[in-house]
Amino acid sequence: MTAPSAVDWTGGLGLARTATDDGPVVVLRRDADPAAAIALVDGQRHPDLPALLDAAAGDPSRITAGEVLDAPDRSLLSPVGRPGKIICIGQNYLDHVREGGRTGGPAYPDLFPKWHTCLSGPYADVPLPPESDQIDYESELAVVIGRRVRRVTAESASDVVFGYTAASDGSVRDYQVHTGQRTAGKAWDSLTPLGPVVVPAETLGGDRPDLAITGVLDGQVVQDDRTAKLLFGVPELIAYITTVMTLEPGDLILTGTPSGVGVARKPPLWLRDGSEFEVRIEGIGSLRNRYVAERVSP
Amino acid sequence: MTAPSAVDWTGGLGLARTATDDGPVVVLRRDADPAAAIALVDGQRHPDLPALLDAAAGDPSRITAGEVLDAPDRSLLSPVGRPGKIICIGQNYLDHVREGGRTGGPAYPDLFPKWHTCLSGPYADVPLPPESDQIDYESELAVVIGRRVRRVTAESASDVVFGYTAASDGSVRDYQVHTGQRTAGKAWDSLTPLGPVVVPAETLGGDRPDLAITGVLDGQVVQDDRTAKLLFGVPELIAYITTVMTLEPGDLILTGTPSGVGVARKPPLWLRDGSEFEVRIEGIGSLRNRYVAERVSP
Repeated sequence: MTAPSAVDWTGGLGLARTATDDGPVVVLRRDADPAAAIALVDGQRHPDLPALLDAAAGDPSRITAGEVLDAPDRSLLSPVGRPGKIICIGQNYLDHVREGGRTGGPAYPDLFPKWHTCLSGPYADVPLPPESDQIDYESELAVVIGRRVRRVTAESASDVVFGYTAASDGSVRDYQVHTGQRTAGKAWDSLTPLGPVVVPAETLGGDRPDLAITGVLDGQVVQDDRTAKLLFGVPELIAYITTVMTLEPGDLILTGTPSGVGVARKPPLWLRDGSEFEVRIEGIGSLRNRYVAERVSP
Repeated sequence: MTAPSAVDWTGGLGLARTATDDGPVVVLRRDADPAAAIALVDGQRHPDLPALLDAAAGDPSRITAGEVLDAPDRSLLSPVGRPGKIICIGQNYLDHVREGGRTGGPAYPDLFPKWHTCLSGPYADVPLPPESDQIDYESELAVVIGRRVRRVTAESASDVVFGYTAASDGSVRDYQVHTGQRTAGKAWDSLTPLGPVVVPAETLGGDRPDLAITGVLDGQVVQDDRTAKLLFGVPELIAYITTVMTLEPGDLILTGTPSGVGVARKPPLWLRDGSEFEVRIEGIGSLRNRYVAERVSP
């Protein structure tokens, strides 16, 4: 073993999580490069990102590179396994608000939940539950929180963000309108793939990233926008959310989806057995999942 | 030290959590009795209820009583510190639906979230945030899940519940209507006291408990109902929720509040600096908190 070395975070290097014979471990990895160094803080490896980010205390320079592993795409897990919170934002791109039949965005950030059981790995096969035939994709920029904070103003939010990754906010549209609350449509097991890597904010434009975000269904571009067009930007989301609650290292904010979702199309476009949906975000990489009809024993 | 002994769960004995010099520990305790035995599974103590319930694998007979501690009311923590999920149910008593101006309950369970940062201990002083003067109480029966389950029918839900405790679903009414989603009004830090003890379901009527539930504000009864009047009973809630997601040991379901909430009164009745709100549930005990105006540095 060689001594841990300082990390050069340029070129899309980020934190991923890979399965090993000794359990999951956080690694330093680039999209499409299976060579990955174990991520260390004070010489310690971590099985999950919240504990690693807590140990690093919001300072990416404390993360060093250890032993190099082979971490092929199929070994990657959701980069955050058990976040304390997953807070999702609805109605946060104007074109998406309009395709839903509304003329303007909400007056305040529109918060709804997911939980850790929702997450899937970045290249996992995702089970499509048999209870619905209205399962939709939503490409999103996900914020990974780096510090424990409450009542942060938008002006001082920049050091709250550790980094960004890609998410697909899988949405079961019939359950989503069972009541006025979206929860039952949004909190399905495994329908929220995340990853592949969490890239530090400073290499992606800080807390106002302007990145191309693209959703690709079976090779066809269905969503295509830029993250600069968020109605509530990352600093405004952090300010509003931390008025209400404490954010902690590893907490996730899914910032909302651009236009082009399946439910807004005529005819609607749904995820089907064998569908592949890919979320591409500039500077982060490609989150790519195949959806497979789930067999449920009667 | 004496050998661990079998537990007699009658008479309101349940699981609580107390702060010690060695950190939190789960104990066996009755409401109003500060003598508490450390709760053991296979001889091991646990700092939090999810891990203890996971070790007990849904079988309360595997829990044994160890060393007795002094655990006075003020030492008690939320009996679950870090649940994987807190799922709350809106509109689940008909009189409460009606006091909100609706004529009938929802067609499906109405799910909204809280997270672990919402919780407070059963006798803690709870900070009232300065951002709102419309902070409301809601007495609720809380279900503590004992097993990891998905797709459970209502008919087979009885062994999914470990037990019950009391909760106050603190609600910031102006933030609750910022958007169509209740999240921002419901997820405030510390506004959800829980406890004092989690009493096993089998001593409280199984999965259809019929318990008196009373909310008392500054000595005056403001809510008074029975848990048998839940519109969606515990088995129906578990069946619906586990269609969508996996429930795990220590997950919480807050089953909804009876009528009598502050926002529905004329004039409205809000929690103020110095208010005391108590949730009494038959067979569980008394969850009693003082609310104290929070000072926020500018």
